[in-house]
Amino acid sequence: MKTMKVGMIGGGFMAKAHSLAMTAVPMFYEDDVRLEKHIIADIDEPSADAAAKKLGFSHSTSDWKTIINNPEVDIVDIVTPNHLHEEMAIAAAEAGKHIMCEKPLGRNAEETARILAAVDKAGVKHMVTFNYRRTPAVALAKKYIDEGAVGKILNFRGTYLQDWSADPGSPLSWRFDKDFAGSGTLGDIGTHVLDIAHYLVADIVEVNAMTRTWIDERPVQASQKDSLGNVKMPNGKKGQVTVDDELVTMLKFNNGAIGSLEATRNAWGRHNFLTFEIHGEKGSLFFNYERRDELQVCFSEDPEDRRGYKKVYTGGVHPYGEGLWPIPGLGIGYSEVKIIEMHEFLSAIMNDRVCEPSFKEGHRIAQVTDAILNSAEEQRWTKTNAHA
Amino acid sequence: MKTMKVGMIGGGFMAKAHSLAMTAVPMFYEDDVRLEKHIIADIDEPSADAAAKKLGFSHSTSDWKTIINNPEVDIVDIVTPNHLHEEMAIAAAEAGKHIMCEKPLGRNAEETARILAAVDKAGVKHMVTFNYRRTPAVALAKKYIDEGAVGKILNFRGTYLQDWSADPGSPLSWRFDKDFAGSGTLGDIGTHVLDIAHYLVADIVEVNAMTRTWIDERPVQASQKDSLGNVKMPNGKKGQVTVDDELVTMLKFNNGAIGSLEATRNAWGRHNFLTFEIHGEKGSLFFNYERRDELQVCFSEDPEDRRGYKKVYTGGVHPYGEGLWPIPGLGIGYSEVKIIEMHEFLSAIMNDRVCEPSFKEGHRIAQVTDAILNSAEEQRWTKTNAHA
Amino acid sequence: MKTMKVGMIGGGFMAKAHSLAMTAVPMFYEDDVRLEKHIIADIDEPSADAAAKKLGFSHSTSDWKTIINNPEVDIVDIVTPNHLHEEMAIAAAEAGKHIMCEKPLGRNAEETARILAAVDKAGVKHMVTFNYRRTPAVALAKKYIDEGAVGKILNFRGTYLQDWSADPGSPLSWRFDKDFAGSGTLGDIGTHVLDIAHYLVADIVEVNAMTRTWIDERPVQASQKDSLGNVKMPNGKKGQVTVDDELVTMLKFNNGAIGSLEATRNAWGRHNFLTFEIHGEKGSLFFNYERRDELQVCFSEDPEDRRGYKKVYTGGVHPYGEGLWPIPGLGIGYSEVKIIEMHEFLSAIMNDRVCEPSFKEGHRIAQVTDAILNSAEEQRWTKTNAHA
Amino acid sequence: MKTMKVGMIGGGFMAKAHSLAMTAVPMFYEDDVRLEKHIIADIDEPSADAAAKKLGFSHSTSDWKTIINNPEVDIVDIVTPNHLHEEMAIAAAEAGKHIMCEKPLGRNAEETARILAAVDKAGVKHMVTFNYRRTPAVALAKKYIDEGAVGKILNFRGTYLQDWSADPGSPLSWRFDKDFAGSGTLGDIGTHVLDIAHYLVADIVEVNAMTRTWIDERPVQASQKDSLGNVKMPNGKKGQVTVDDELVTMLKFNNGAIGSLEATRNAWGRHNFLTFEIHGEKGSLFFNYERRDELQVCFSEDPEDRRGYKKVYTGGVHPYGEGLWPIPGLGIGYSEVKIIEMHEFLSAIMNDRVCEPSFKEGHRIAQVTDAILNSAEEQRWTKTNAHA
Repeated sequence: MKTMKVGMIGGGFMAKAHSLAMTAVPMFYEDDVRLEKHIIADIDEPSADAAAKKLGFSHSTSDWKTIINNPEVDIVDIVTPNHLHEEMAIAAAEAGKHIMCEKPLGRNAEETARILAAVDKAGVKHMVTFNYRRTPAVALAKKYIDEGAVGKILNFRGTYLQDWSADPGSPLSWRFDKDFAGSGTLGDIGTHVLDIAHYLVADIVEVNAMTRTWIDERPVQASQKDSLGNVKMPNGKKGQVTVDDELVTMLKFNNGAIGSLEATRNAWGRHNFLTFEIHGEKGSLFFNYERRDELQVCFSEDPEDRRGYKKVYTGGVHPYGEGLWPIPGLGIGYSEVKIIEMHEFLSAIMNDRVCEPSFKEGHRIAQVTDAILNSAEEQRWTKTNAHA
Repeated sequence: MKTMKVGMIGGGFMAKAHSLAMTAVPMFYEDDVRLEKHIIADIDEPSADAAAKKLGFSHSTSDWKTIINNPEVDIVDIVTPNHLHEEMAIAAAEAGKHIMCEKPLGRNAEETARILAAVDKAGVKHMVTFNYRRTPAVALAKKYIDEGAVGKILNFRGTYLQDWSADPGSPLSWRFDKDFAGSGTLGDIGTHVLDIAHYLVADIVEVNAMTRTWIDERPVQASQKDSLGNVKMPNGKKGQVTVDDELVTMLKFNNGAIGSLEATRNAWGRHNFLTFEIHGEKGSLFFNYERRDELQVCFSEDPEDRRGYKKVYTGGVHPYGEGLWPIPGLGIGYSEVKIIEMHEFLSAIMNDRVCEPSFKEGHRIAQVTDAILNSAEEQRWTKTNAHA
Repeated sequence: MKTMKVGMIGGGFMAKAHSLAMTAVPMFYEDDVRLEKHIIADIDEPSADAAAKKLGFSHSTSDWKTIINNPEVDIVDIVTPNHLHEEMAIAAAEAGKHIMCEKPLGRNAEETARILAAVDKAGVKHMVTFNYRRTPAVALAKKYIDEGAVGKILNFRGTYLQDWSADPGSPLSWRFDKDFAGSGTLGDIGTHVLDIAHYLVADIVEVNAMTRTWIDERPVQASQKDSLGNVKMPNGKKGQVTVDDELVTMLKFNNGAIGSLEATRNAWGRHNFLTFEIHGEKGSLFFNYERRDELQVCFSEDPEDRRGYKKVYTGGVHPYGEGLWPIPGLGIGYSEVKIIEMHEFLSAIMNDRVCEPSFKEGHRIAQVTDAILNSAEEQRWTKTNAHA
Repeated sequence: MKTMKVGMIGGGFMAKAHSLAMTAVPMFYEDDVRLEKHIIADIDEPSADAAAKKLGFSHSTSDWKTIINNPEVDIVDIVTPNHLHEEMAIAAAEAGKHIMCEKPLGRNAEETARILAAVDKAGVKHMVTFNYRRTPAVALAKKYIDEGAVGKILNFRGTYLQDWSADPGSPLSWRFDKDFAGSGTLGDIGTHVLDIAHYLVADIVEVNAMTRTWIDERPVQASQKDSLGNVKMPNGKKGQVTVDDELVTMLKFNNGAIGSLEATRNAWGRHNFLTFEIHGEKGSLFFNYERRDELQVCFSEDPEDRRGYKKVYTGGVHPYGEGLWPIPGLGIGYSEVKIIEMHEFLSAIMNDRVCEPSFKEGHRIAQVTDAILNSAEEQRWTKTNAHA
């Protein structure tokens, strides 16, 4: 069995999720490779050291370039704020490392084009971690579609609704700053739905969008650190929010289907409400990540008096089921989804195949994202192939 | 107690719904007026006679003008296909009758402008039967909003999804013919959601839409009669569908809120899936007519560890509750909703006040509808005040 | 077309429900009989007169025997508290009237045995109004079972949970007094579930129960009038509750199936939560009256990767659909359920057949009810055929 | 930081779950102890070796006593079929190891009494892995109850419904053999609900039960290995099932509350449907593990027109939230639940306190279990303190 060494850049909650997946994946899937959590970089020595201890890395550093320059490291995993992705990913590619990078791949399509060029040139494996398509129920939707069970797709309706920053006392982290994040809800959560739309329906060719910043200033905190709503500073000095709180867009797909997407962080009572509904000529699909063990499906071919939306709980007979828990409903959590994602990455490396969603898809989504921002500014339909 | 005589024009399923409400309303609400079902008109004598017997009218006619010309008739109730509304409503107004008219009020804003002018001139009472706003749970949403419980509204997301014509074998009734219907899903079901949006949020000032006709020809039947999916003619000769099967539009409200609406008849597994979700600065609301006894509401002011969407079943303490069933969950059906609507109409007459949604609102919705069709054609944002 | 005259005894909310159904039934189902709401009796002249006006009866009386003695009356409809059923029903039978009687048929099986003997002797038609089995979704469950779609039934789990009297300030109406009601939740709501269990599964042969009175005294009010939770008297003088607030029982059916039933009025957040789940060798069924437009069903014969609970909304192709609204989800309310019930009663009269649930079933349920109370007292399994 | 060495006995799916938790727990909770997965035992050398590789143990053995006798091992984790628990647990206790043991602790209360005596004598820490009480939403229910938010508890209704063996072709694993398992659904899944009932309500003092074996013979397989429904042998030679497929019991608690429990493996469409509903004088709680991110709660103190069941998604402000994912709805899966369980065990060791549910609770549940089987046999109410 092969062992590969990982260098991780970043020490936040996503570092935890990835680290867990790295350790757990051989327990779930018999990949012919083991990962060694070799080194982790964070903002300073104490943070890096603490992260290493907590997440099980052998070494730590406050200088991410140490990782790039370390010839022992096979895989670089980038879990930093968005503005750092480009430099890190290109450096890793040039050093010949395989790369996992958190979404969105870059702040805009110019960045992602350069990243994509670098990995293409280097010939390394690459994946952008749009993890939600790895939820077994989403993969089951893909399977049903591929089997023709819902027929030609007519319509896609996606939402990603959250409320962690609906309180104006939630501080001004990097996620609210265009320089760091590129965009707001669009890049942060909207891109997950765009990825699912590309995965399940087709390429998005034209968009028509509105964006709104509902809370235009927020309390300034000491760092750019992101508490994701778990800190409130109701009386702090305020600074400017420079990204969107909400996004609504219409979509046209290259197969003739149409659709819509709404993403917002101002939806009280919705937390990680990533949903989609797909209507095809022969059936419909509905998914809500907050109830992620289930896929709902309606097959028009059912007898008319026995027709309706059916709730399928994913288990052993569904995608990824052979490696998961033996009974549907035992529980798909964030851990399980990230484990499947890691399994896909390692399989791609071992079998020398492209790992989807690759940086190519990450770049394509950046093009769509740019078109959406452009459309919102110019208030008109905008083609997605006109950008970078 | 006063008695008023009703003349009804039309004998289809909506005639049944209105007739039931007329008979039932005094059992539910102590309105100081009783309705006498005096005369009903239908397409020919046998149909009219059968309708009279079935629905409890004393007289019948195949000529609707008989009703207009009958001085005994106080109220005219128009439940015919859309293309007939204008002539009938104007005639009724000129004859000094109070008027109920099925939605949409007309095929376009030119028609509705003329209808509105006629009733304004005549000084009669008028109501367009956007009945869904009368669902107790929708009225409760209105109450919460008026009490400030969800704060300033930021966003409205409405859907109306059906599948009764998703089968291409569903015949070409008047609802698929622009000459009769004016538009397809837009006028037929989309307008209900527009009415609710106006009722709960604010006036819609700008729209940006797409429409699609997914099934562009359907089996021709002997008449224009509408079976609402309960007849299939899989092998019939085909004729052209000239209206939209699906509509997606973005919305801008005059209070700064934004929103979206999707209406479709091609959503397998959805039947009368009229939903809305409203996000405000202080809370959220969700409603699904298929589960119409319930309103879901999230109040941000709840303690953080006890916060979430709450499911309120409407009963005695909620709007219209004093006249309905004594226990929440006994059951709000289509009957109850239409009874409340009739109660509102009669109250308006007795108390000499405007009955909302009046023809003024009916006309306003026609302006929005025209703007939506215009926007879909021209593929751009379109103002709603530029139309008729 | 035949017309039959109705005399109604009682003027509360159930009188409203029945009156509505009487008027509406020909609009929904082409029964070859029309009902004339001839006369209504209530506690005193003013009440009876008001009820007649409100509900559309031609005459009123404060003496129910006037109705019995009126040779014009064809049908007697008894919607009074339970302790009055026996005398009224027997008198009506002896006078040769057809009889509808509210549930439970009597306070105990001794009463119901005498009632049953009277109608059998008189040869009149009779129905006890266990209306919930008339919900289209419940009738659909029956159809699936009869078609063998869920196979041999193994298990039935029923609940009927309410909260209208969970507040100790809800006054001491007749429903809390054994002399008037016979029992508490058992007779009031538990019997509805027993009726459904008999309808869908089989005869109940043995029971093993617990009962509890959680609030043992309540504010005394001027009359025995029942506000069903819509009046609160937090500071009133208290009187003794002499019936059960909650009932839990295990069930054995004569076909080998087993089951359980819980009925309570102390379930905060549940209002008319009548549910059942049935597990058979080949499938399962779930129903919740609070979402009564839907039946959930799982067919084991579905392919394993497409198997799950399916949500079927009842419409035109389902039981009673031909007379109801043309689109599933337009709305089944309490009105619609009572209209179907009335339709069944009139069909039975016109076609000279037994109308189920007849007084025979009403008596059988009284035997089961007696056995349940007996079991709860003696704390042991009790056969249901040992009683009256 | 302290490191403790674990010896695990058993290599099935539960071994995976525990191994994952051991590795992951320091990433989630800063326990002052790290676990080293030292050695694992399985049925034979190749199995043990494979398990060690897959799950990350340094050593393996086919003889579990090797683990007991290894002085380096601090903690023994028993994840074997039930009939082996007693010998292993007593041996581990006598060797001074801390012990985690899968549920049920033993096949009957005689066994569990001896196990409990052994650990009491040895003074080691011990936990029986009734993991479901560790679901954050269940812990939140506990918190609400402890805060008095639902008042005095009146009623508990629990279910655990599965369908993995509803197909008669599911083979005869050890779970269907009384010699190995002690009981069927009762021990396997019913005990989880009993644990939750003890945790949330009070001690169960009396029971009254029915059990049924719906499929009395099943295909014999080569080993006793348990595929949990993922293998079907429709045509195999049959052997006798000697345990219950379904269990229904009524419950009396020592605080006056009453309740019921149903557990079955013959509920098509239900997979890991562990639910409870609790009604108190001031509110209600509902939980369904299949939608485990949510707790539903109704507070009677809410204003009457804003009262209803509220859906609370667990996140950072709820129990265990500080160590979990930062946003509610990111996902609680089986992994997360087992990680929390492991965290509780390690905390107890580090802080030298009892780890609930300890073997004391495991033994108490065995007493209740014995009483249930006894009651089912003798068909009568049975006290739970009369057993072992």
